[in-house]
Amino acid sequence: MSKVGIIMGSDSDIPVMKDATEMLDELQISYEVTISSAHRTPDDTADWAREARDRGVEVIIAGAGASAALPGVGAAYTELPVIGVPLKAWAFDGMDALLSIAQMPPGVPVATVGVNGAKNGALMAARIMAASDEGLRDHLREYGEKQASVVRQKNARLQENGMGEY
Amino acid sequence: MSKVGIIMGSDSDIPVMKDATEMLDELQISYEVTISSAHRTPDDTADWAREARDRGVEVIIAGAGASAALPGVGAAYTELPVIGVPLKAWAFDGMDALLSIAQMPPGVPVATVGVNGAKNGALMAARIMAASDEGLRDHLREYGEKQASVVRQKNARLQENGMGEY
Amino acid sequence: MSKVGIIMGSDSDIPVMKDATEMLDELQISYEVTISSAHRTPDDTADWAREARDRGVEVIIAGAGASAALPGVGAAYTELPVIGVPLKAWAFDGMDALLSIAQMPPGVPVATVGVNGAKNGALMAARIMAASDEGLRDHLREYGEKQASVVRQKNARLQENGMGEY
Amino acid sequence: MSKVGIIMGSDSDIPVMKDATEMLDELQISYEVTISSAHRTPDDTADWAREARDRGVEVIIAGAGASAALPGVGAAYTELPVIGVPLKAWAFDGMDALLSIAQMPPGVPVATVGVNGAKNGALMAARIMAASDEGLRDHLREYGEKQASVVRQKNARLQENGMGEY
Amino acid sequence: MSKVGIIMGSDSDIPVMKDATEMLDELQISYEVTISSAHRTPDDTADWAREARDRGVEVIIAGAGASAALPGVGAAYTELPVIGVPLKAWAFDGMDALLSIAQMPPGVPVATVGVNGAKNGALMAARIMAASDEGLRDHLREYGEKQASVVRQKNARLQENGMGEY
Amino acid sequence: MSKVGIIMGSDSDIPVMKDATEMLDELQISYEVTISSAHRTPDDTADWAREARDRGVEVIIAGAGASAALPGVGAAYTELPVIGVPLKAWAFDGMDALLSIAQMPPGVPVATVGVNGAKNGALMAARIMAASDEGLRDHLREYGEKQASVVRQKNARLQENGMGEY
Amino acid sequence: MSKVGIIMGSDSDIPVMKDATEMLDELQISYEVTISSAHRTPDDTADWAREARDRGVEVIIAGAGASAALPGVGAAYTELPVIGVPLKAWAFDGMDALLSIAQMPPGVPVATVGVNGAKNGALMAARIMAASDEGLRDHLREYGEKQASVVRQKNARLQENGMGEY
Amino acid sequence: MSKVGIIMGSDSDIPVMKDATEMLDELQISYEVTISSAHRTPDDTADWAREARDRGVEVIIAGAGASAALPGVGAAYTELPVIGVPLKAWAFDGMDALLSIAQMPPGVPVATVGVNGAKNGALMAARIMAASDEGLRDHLREYGEKQASVVRQKNARLQENGMGEY
Repeated sequence: MSKVGIIMGSDSDIPVMKDATEMLDELQISYEVTISSAHRTPDDTADWAREARDRGVEVIIAGAGASAALPGVGAAYTELPVIGVPLKAWAFDGMDALLSIAQMPPGVPVATVGVNGAKNGALMAARIMAASDEGLRDHLREYGEKQASVVRQKNARLQENGMGEY
Repeated sequence: MSKVGIIMGSDSDIPVMKDATEMLDELQISYEVTISSAHRTPDDTADWAREARDRGVEVIIAGAGASAALPGVGAAYTELPVIGVPLKAWAFDGMDALLSIAQMPPGVPVATVGVNGAKNGALMAARIMAASDEGLRDHLREYGEKQASVVRQKNARLQENGMGEY
Repeated sequence: MSKVGIIMGSDSDIPVMKDATEMLDELQISYEVTISSAHRTPDDTADWAREARDRGVEVIIAGAGASAALPGVGAAYTELPVIGVPLKAWAFDGMDALLSIAQMPPGVPVATVGVNGAKNGALMAARIMAASDEGLRDHLREYGEKQASVVRQKNARLQENGMGEY
Repeated sequence: MSKVGIIMGSDSDIPVMKDATEMLDELQISYEVTISSAHRTPDDTADWAREARDRGVEVIIAGAGASAALPGVGAAYTELPVIGVPLKAWAFDGMDALLSIAQMPPGVPVATVGVNGAKNGALMAARIMAASDEGLRDHLREYGEKQASVVRQKNARLQENGMGEY
Repeated sequence: MSKVGIIMGSDSDIPVMKDATEMLDELQISYEVTISSAHRTPDDTADWAREARDRGVEVIIAGAGASAALPGVGAAYTELPVIGVPLKAWAFDGMDALLSIAQMPPGVPVATVGVNGAKNGALMAARIMAASDEGLRDHLREYGEKQASVVRQKNARLQENGMGEY
Repeated sequence: MSKVGIIMGSDSDIPVMKDATEMLDELQISYEVTISSAHRTPDDTADWAREARDRGVEVIIAGAGASAALPGVGAAYTELPVIGVPLKAWAFDGMDALLSIAQMPPGVPVATVGVNGAKNGALMAARIMAASDEGLRDHLREYGEKQASVVRQKNARLQENGMGEY
Repeated sequence: MSKVGIIMGSDSDIPVMKDATEMLDELQISYEVTISSAHRTPDDTADWAREARDRGVEVIIAGAGASAALPGVGAAYTELPVIGVPLKAWAFDGMDALLSIAQMPPGVPVATVGVNGAKNGALMAARIMAASDEGLRDHLREYGEKQASVVRQKNARLQENGMGEY
Repeated sequence: MSKVGIIMGSDSDIPVMKDATEMLDELQISYEVTISSAHRTPDDTADWAREARDRGVEVIIAGAGASAALPGVGAAYTELPVIGVPLKAWAFDGMDALLSIAQMPPGVPVATVGVNGAKNGALMAARIMAASDEGLRDHLREYGEKQASVVRQKNARLQENGMGEY
């Protein structure tokens, strides 16, 4: 059963949102991915969100650019936690999406990550689900240690080679 | 029968949106006003938009601040022209709402007016309906002439009194 | 007789504004296209706007970048509804044009669409004219359904192929 | 045992962060509140985050303004989900804090809510904990229904009184 | 005969634009002041600009807020130098006007001063006219020396009193 | 004798500032061009500005990016009119330079043109000098007419060929 | 002999810059304070910077708003470290000054602190001078400990009183 | 013994931060370079800063993009002067990092240079250390003279060749 429900408004969002699925794969978290638009297929999207819990979804990740209504629609139709990923679209480097997603009205929360931050969206979903999943918690700890170790390896290489030869 | 359907997400929007109803009153255009939230009562809002034409609505004016999804929801559920009024909320002087409303995805248009521009929202609705309503066109022409005349009177007063005594 | 009057300040705007004419072609809406500048040929532009209704124009679409005065000039010289398309120019990703077009003074409305949003400009014009044109309303409904169906096809392809192979 | 750990850098943040504790009170969620600064008491803050899980904390809410490093510090020292609340400080309406908190590097996620959005921070915490707490899920559903009902009551009042007398 | 032609779109601009007339008074430069709107009285405004030289105007100062088309209209209808003063209006601290006025298309220049910078608008007009007016050049030099002397007096007071007692 | 004094801080500014010299060439206005930096050769720059009038300079055009102090330095050391051209540098699309140049303190004016607007800088200089130079005024009028005629030719071509073949 | 040289362009900057002198007083660091303007008294300012070292100044703090050239002028005329304090002026919440001061051209550095950050300007000066002054280093350590202790006291009060009664 | 401690969060920062090491090489200042992340290796980073003085570090240069917590972490764990270099990351041209680094809370100062301003970061470090190092002061003076001389050579080439042939 899928634990994370990923939704995006267009297939043009796939190159960025793939960072989320790859991260979930690495953490061995199951997920479903859906293309559905807040503005072009609003009823499908509402149904998708309303029925998410019944499909076994525990956390939603919604990627959207520009006007970026999708995460808010998700949050309006379900009590599941919704993580919004603001995507760069054709202008303003994603600032339009960031403001649309972050500035939700009081009462209907969305958890915003950084612009094009699909990987962090997946990690936030994992942190949320790790509360009741000790195995996942272990995966997250290992992931954090792996990250730290990569940083230390890079530093070791820098100490060895110096700036010029890095 | 109401020709303009005005919708806003909260009664806190009334002080600004009143500029729209006063302008419509002055132009003798009938309207309905509804409070319904894109995020707190999404189904009501979808129904409101979907049934607007059947209620006789010809143009929609949707006022919204911050994340400002309301005009886009309207545009998603009806083929009527939707005018979006970005409202100042608690930060950024309305820039969040302006971007959310203006940056709609290709295929689902919203006609954005300026920040807190409810009066211009009403005038845009009137321009739209005047296409098939000669009486309204006359009202609009008179309104334009009245505006020009007010500017000229102010100038006359300035010429008489000068900057110091204006 | 042309129903939509499209105006832009320079032939460098054609690549973006072509999105509008292609959309109008698809909806079988007649139009005229004119190059005239608010600042370089101000009298021509004023005449163009003043005489638009007599040429049969029902809605104006004005594309402009940077200082972007053209839509406002249109709105000043006619009571027709004017749709402004802010175009990216040489800086600020179109924010200059967006603010110039959206922030019209109370009394003279312009309907702003998103940056480079010529396609939505055409669709907004269609929504406006559909009020008194049942055939056009049918075209718009079909267009909306086609859009939804494209989204659903993309989703079906995604379900079949997954993220990796999409 | 406290389920939500709230942290803020200064007592000047209390007036806004109180929106979070009041919301948690309403949802009957237990919490602890701590003042500790990312820059003035960095070791205390690191310890606080590192030991949060052992104190029974399931979700962290960190409010911070301006440079707003606090949520990121939290996320660096624990695998718990961290919700960041960007606070308005002395300039830029909270844009500095919003960018600092949202734009976390890939690998270390923070869930950002809107500027001064402490109430939504609390609701996001509740959504996260509701996954494994059916009673809380019921509270959230009731809260959502109450919200919707308030919107509908406001609308009913508007229909009765009109814009003028609202 | 008036040497400087000042124009603004509304009498609400007078409190700021008075800084210009007071500066011109101090420099003993004659001027005319007119209220005329680029959008509400476009023909009057065009005529005003077209006939400015014949009225003896040598430099134009145009103050405008928000969409701020007025300086550009002036520059389109005359070869006189036009100084644009972006005024704060109801949002964005004057950024909308600053961009509208500064970002003129190549070929039609406007000389922009700072937001609400009516005083500097007057001084720029004076610098322009001083080219062919030695008396004015003397006035400008004296004004500059007076400014420097005020700064030095303030410094002297500070040296005497210190920060605490200033 | 040179009438326009052009100054820029670095030879990397030449590609943009060449738009100014080409425009001046076209209008047959003589000029001098100097590289001198407000921060790297401050004394040279101060001397350059102080002695500009004695070299016959009537108007200064100063191009600068980023911190963009050069136009202000010019305005501080001479009573000549100074036109500031904000240049795009390594970030923010020239917004840093635009604000630095436009937001001069009251008392020391700079005439700002648009970002990278060297051509308009030259035309503004020409407008300023045309006050006392009838031949130049004729050149400017001809230039304006040529511009208008180019717009009309483009429009004629568009009418002939349509959008598709333009 | 004064160790810190504070300069600001106007006496209107005193209320903010007093935060610097009070912090220096607390750290027992001697200082001089001068009002001199980059644009109104450029020669005085250049002399002030050029002779600073000879007066015993080791670090410069320059406060400036809007166009904010003062710190850069300082950095151009001396090799001493210059700390720039961007001040809020009449628009943009200090963003104009922040960009002017931070975006110095490569080769001439200014150390920028936050908007209105005069206190941090003083502390940065202290950190700089502490390199060769062990007593000052002790003062700074004590100041840091005092800061931490204030945070801890606030937290203790919060634990005792709770959010409601704080 | 290293006098400047350079730290950055990732090896992707090396291409920009190399400007700092090259500048330090030119000024014959010794330095150490470390990769350590504020969020991925927080304890390493805290230790690095805490022990910097004992390793002989006199000034810290910390380069960071996006959320950019690294300079602030440095400043929190040491009394050494910390210079923050905001780096462009994946959005907003470095504005996110600039605000994160500049807007430090009162009490914990960071000296911010411009976006990607690693070279100025190195020069600021040199200015700081020159206070107690006469040889370094000489190097800085020579560097300033070399810079000025380069500007003058460029100007000489321009005078010889003109704009066209430069």
